[in-house]
Amino acid sequence: MGEVKTPEPARRSERSRQAILTAAVELVGEVGYARLTIEAIAARAGVGKQTIYRWWPSKGAVVLDAFVALGGSSEPAALPDTGDLEADLKTVLRATVQELTDPRFELPSRALTAESQSDPALAQQFVEAVLRPHLTAIQERLRAAQKAGQVAKGVDLSVAVELLVGPLFHRWLLRTAPLTRAYADTVAALAVAALRPASRSR
Amino acid sequence: MGEVKTPEPARRSERSRQAILTAAVELVGEVGYARLTIEAIAARAGVGKQTIYRWWPSKGAVVLDAFVALGGSSEPAALPDTGDLEADLKTVLRATVQELTDPRFELPSRALTAESQSDPALAQQFVEAVLRPHLTAIQERLRAAQKAGQVAKGVDLSVAVELLVGPLFHRWLLRTAPLTRAYADTVAALAVAALRPASRSR
Repeated sequence: MGEVKTPEPARRSERSRQAILTAAVELVGEVGYARLTIEAIAARAGVGKQTIYRWWPSKGAVVLDAFVALGGSSEPAALPDTGDLEADLKTVLRATVQELTDPRFELPSRALTAESQSDPALAQQFVEAVLRPHLTAIQERLRAAQKAGQVAKGVDLSVAVELLVGPLFHRWLLRTAPLTRAYADTVAALAVAALRPASRSR
Repeated sequence: MGEVKTPEPARRSERSRQAILTAAVELVGEVGYARLTIEAIAARAGVGKQTIYRWWPSKGAVVLDAFVALGGSSEPAALPDTGDLEADLKTVLRATVQELTDPRFELPSRALTAESQSDPALAQQFVEAVLRPHLTAIQERLRAAQKAGQVAKGVDLSVAVELLVGPLFHRWLLRTAPLTRAYADTVAALAVAALRPASRSR
């Protein structure tokens, strides 16, 4: 692939795009989403406002792409499968806690979640581009566990995924209590107990 | 209490306060939170802007009080305790689904959740005034179940509460899938399985 030469205008475009995305993430952190403007992003990135509007319809759309580029959706395509479901789920939930409490991710995540409440198009893009790959990866790990007999046959795996991530999201977004690794571990252990095949009838 | 006569100015104040709260809820539904203004609330309520600013520091604070007055936090002080934990939790989670999908509650709930992301003072008031009574009532029901031997002794009940409400909140706020009574029932059943004392060692 190294042999293919990218034409100069395309490379310039890509440099501008990267500069815009970097500026957007930096500025969300510095001034907050509400006071972020397309003008400020353009100035920081050294491009014209029209360059931004040519590629993105709204401030929310730029921030979403910036967030994706930052690695907000860079979850591995598949979760680890060591054969120990609880250990693997603890690994992924601890990583989620770490990301949600990392200021570089936290500020744009909160901004996008908030903005999604009044912008249905952004909401859908946010869920599909950022969340869905993460939820799907967990669901695939649960499917393997179900095949291995570690998860009861009748369990709806799309619900099981939200049983794992919902409690983390709730505590993070509403700040009901500190979001810690210990909390992630407890949630993973409880969820595994919930999903386990019944050892006897109730 | 009927014998105590409220003085006329106090009654007038109370009428104004109610008119302001009603106007705030109506307008959030009609124009959305972002385009809601104190001016519009004052005009609809038939009061001066200064009357609103005398009682509330911000638009978010008015909407929060309006939401509380609407009954957003009118959860019963205690959950039903029929002795059947799963049935009681299904009752409360179904009621939560109904409230979250009722447009009168849904619009201000989403607005307050969104606004809380950039307004820490509002966030804290929202959690304490609206959410905490609901979470505490569930936790007390779980404590009774723990005493009755239906919940394992070692379970941290504050985590157990978020295992119940977190998945509902996640699906509702992010619209990952429709929020239904069936989902509430499944989450309640899984949570009860998670909390149950182990019938044998693992």
